Amino acid sequence: MLNITVWNENRHEQNNPKVRDIYPNGIHGAIAGFLQDEGLKTRTATLDEEAHGLSEQVLQETDVLIWWGHLAHDEVDDLIVENIKKRVLEGMGLIVLHSGHHSKIFRSLMGTTCDLKWREADETERVWVVDPSHPIVEGIGEYIELEKEEMYGEHFDIPAPDQLVFLSWFEGGEVFRSGCTYQRGQGKIFYFRPGHETYPTYHQPDVQRIIQNAVQWVAPIERPAPVYGNAQPIEHIKVKQQD
Amino acid sequence: MLNITVWNENRHEQNNPKVRDIYPNGIHGAIAGFLQDEGLKTRTATLDEEAHGLSEQVLQETDVLIWWGHLAHDEVDDLIVENIKKRVLEGMGLIVLHSGHHSKIFRSLMGTTCDLKWREADETERVWVVDPSHPIVEGIGEYIELEKEEMYGEHFDIPAPDQLVFLSWFEGGEVFRSGCTYQRGQGKIFYFRPGHETYPTYHQPDVQRIIQNAVQWVAPIERPAPVYGNAQPIEHIKVKQQD
Amino acid sequence: MLNITVWNENRHEQNNPKVRDIYPNGIHGAIAGFLQDEGLKTRTATLDEEAHGLSEQVLQETDVLIWWGHLAHDEVDDLIVENIKKRVLEGMGLIVLHSGHHSKIFRSLMGTTCDLKWREADETERVWVVDPSHPIVEGIGEYIELEKEEMYGEHFDIPAPDQLVFLSWFEGGEVFRSGCTYQRGQGKIFYFRPGHETYPTYHQPDVQRIIQNAVQWVAPIERPAPVYGNAQPIEHIKVKQQD
Amino acid sequence: MLNITVWNENRHEQNNPKVRDIYPNGIHGAIAGFLQDEGLKTRTATLDEEAHGLSEQVLQETDVLIWWGHLAHDEVDDLIVENIKKRVLEGMGLIVLHSGHHSKIFRSLMGTTCDLKWREADETERVWVVDPSHPIVEGIGEYIELEKEEMYGEHFDIPAPDQLVFLSWFEGGEVFRSGCTYQRGQGKIFYFRPGHETYPTYHQPDVQRIIQNAVQWVAPIERPAPVYGNAQPIEHIKVKQQD
Repeated sequence: MLNITVWNENRHEQNNPKVRDIYPNGIHGAIAGFLQDEGLKTRTATLDEEAHGLSEQVLQETDVLIWWGHLAHDEVDDLIVENIKKRVLEGMGLIVLHSGHHSKIFRSLMGTTCDLKWREADETERVWVVDPSHPIVEGIGEYIELEKEEMYGEHFDIPAPDQLVFLSWFEGGEVFRSGCTYQRGQGKIFYFRPGHETYPTYHQPDVQRIIQNAVQWVAPIERPAPVYGNAQPIEHIKVKQQD
Repeated sequence: MLNITVWNENRHEQNNPKVRDIYPNGIHGAIAGFLQDEGLKTRTATLDEEAHGLSEQVLQETDVLIWWGHLAHDEVDDLIVENIKKRVLEGMGLIVLHSGHHSKIFRSLMGTTCDLKWREADETERVWVVDPSHPIVEGIGEYIELEKEEMYGEHFDIPAPDQLVFLSWFEGGEVFRSGCTYQRGQGKIFYFRPGHETYPTYHQPDVQRIIQNAVQWVAPIERPAPVYGNAQPIEHIKVKQQD
Repeated sequence: MLNITVWNENRHEQNNPKVRDIYPNGIHGAIAGFLQDEGLKTRTATLDEEAHGLSEQVLQETDVLIWWGHLAHDEVDDLIVENIKKRVLEGMGLIVLHSGHHSKIFRSLMGTTCDLKWREADETERVWVVDPSHPIVEGIGEYIELEKEEMYGEHFDIPAPDQLVFLSWFEGGEVFRSGCTYQRGQGKIFYFRPGHETYPTYHQPDVQRIIQNAVQWVAPIERPAPVYGNAQPIEHIKVKQQD
Repeated sequence: MLNITVWNENRHEQNNPKVRDIYPNGIHGAIAGFLQDEGLKTRTATLDEEAHGLSEQVLQETDVLIWWGHLAHDEVDDLIVENIKKRVLEGMGLIVLHSGHHSKIFRSLMGTTCDLKWREADETERVWVVDPSHPIVEGIGEYIELEKEEMYGEHFDIPAPDQLVFLSWFEGGEVFRSGCTYQRGQGKIFYFRPGHETYPTYHQPDVQRIIQNAVQWVAPIERPAPVYGNAQPIEHIKVKQQD
């Protein structure tokens, strides 16, 4: 049974009545809700909790971490970011949503600025499937349509994804690599673009299905960690060790 | 419940007592056996059956096809190869083993010669995991060791794999990309190197585990096929259609 | 000094006065022209010439082959397709333009249907750079804009490109992976989407620059071919050869 | 004309007479030497110089930075690492050699630990070409052989390379992804494994050729930087901007 932790900055919900109306339990509450509906064991954590709700024990018990942040990336403690990164490299799955592209944890795992273009203009977004074989698109049609969303546009300053799953189209003339997978250490990462706080994106069934699929896809596998450092040669090969 | 079809050329087993001793039920029988032990619904098919045991109905009912061939690639009917390819592009999983690298179906899906170096010299092979996050290595250690195997060496004339899972080391000085995944259409493909007919490779538990994992990994997902051809624009966008 | 061969089906130019007006010397003539302006040694070849203008000698002397076809893919001789493929695997560069996505040579190298969505509706296309480090985008801005083009849309049934260089946006709601690189054997391939015959796309300086850059990028390197087949072990390692 | 800066930690050369015998001008001097022989404009920089020899001006003037470090990764100033990273993302090429795998700059660009196995046992290394189409292997045979080298073995904790160019074989039973390319921002990176300080590896012509080729391959291209941040829509599309 997977243990999911849904992390949310949870600031827009405090400051903006429009966001609170759409997500009365917070973005974290909405996401945790539809995951629990699928029988997943889910907890939430937010920025203003002690250790941002991500103590070493919580991280140790977490199989998949979902991340939504925007206004306060800088307030996330560097030490906790290091702990998260360590856990990802050990195998914990990570799903980074929307404006989480600029989070410390995502930038640290990518090695790039993760900069992009954006525009808040109530544009229609079409999220096209480009890899119809990928488990993350199970149960989805050729594309999903979001009537109004914030635009994110290329160039998106990320490493070339291991797998490009979705591409977004926006009314105003931009495209975006909106579903990207990465392997880092023993961990699997999925970045998924949609989810601006002023739109009910996470209430849309297709979006929920994609996140549910992604939880399964990034989930850790059972295996012993690789051993690093000084190594012995294969027994029957005579290799001269130095003194 | 997945339906697996294990295809084997089944010629070495007829011609070579050594092979028959190792695989009294054929290589196909051995592979089908350890998959059935895991509760998978498995059938076998061989070259000398009608339509090589791969009628359109069999292919239609197959979720994952496993392929072992060596001596008689040219005897496989081009029309059946086309049928298999069509099914892979529709989503049927394909696992190509060892000398299947030169099969018509694999070369047709790769677009290259799939040539390689080889040597039959009872060499030890170490199959190293290079992607410890991949579901295909679940339950496996850092490497698996095969005491005696045929050598396959680079350059292996394949497209760069989507994911490189295993690398092999051989005593005589060669390396080989021995676990490679590919997406083609809606289908997923896994090439796995080990399994020369004169060694009991498919009786080794690690090898069995990898093939079991690969069956799950290449399995098709449920989704409608993409639509191709002449397309209508998004409704609220005024695009002038030509007459 | 590179030898470039520009191949064109050259049928629209015969049948459609509009196309002839835009490309009085044919699409092949236009492309050859702007390559020659850069000092490149260029010849042309067309479908209705003997051997489609692609004798073994011509292929042998060609470092980079550029391919434009649409109406008559089926009329291209299978044997000549085989010869082209052999040359690509030996190192000849290949640039496939626009409707060449459905050519025999491209489909054979890809292993997929290369199907896509299309619409002829005078739509604006924006071709966005997604890899700003790639030599193919040298001298180009963030995107190039084509005022009117045919739409090509996802899903584009190709293997995941080795490098995704361009993504296209179309007014009517579609996106497309419009600049894709592939390695096959010792050869390099670039697929570039723009260039519908009824628009003056190949007269646009940005498009010309991209094709010029691509010629340099796909050009073969000097090296001996890999050796395939039965191989000797490294000398100082005692590996027992079988009798 | 490219400007190359060869950076070396330059500590082994001070502490170990054996290293000083092999590289009387330091590893940096040896590398700068064979690049200058090819007519490249090359300078060197070392750890103990002010700002490690990498002032902002030096970095600004550098097109390609080559990095060799081992004992003193921790002594490299974080601020200078940030400056280097910024320049790589802006387009400066980076070649990381051997034990530079554990340098701050490489780990920061990779997002992983970059851990590996190692053994100092005078083992023969064979560096096999796996991408015979790549400009970095121009002029090289199927493999290069290094009579004695330190072993580096998998698992190598790096992101899957964009392009895997070389694979190494070692006597003692290990394999290693020893030539890896990455794109980060507008920059290109090449990691190349060989070059332990107690062996004359950088005097070997094949190794020199590979590094010369890599310099050309990672060199920046001329192009304007992408623009990030708030963006205007395409003119003829009516998208409502928010207040």
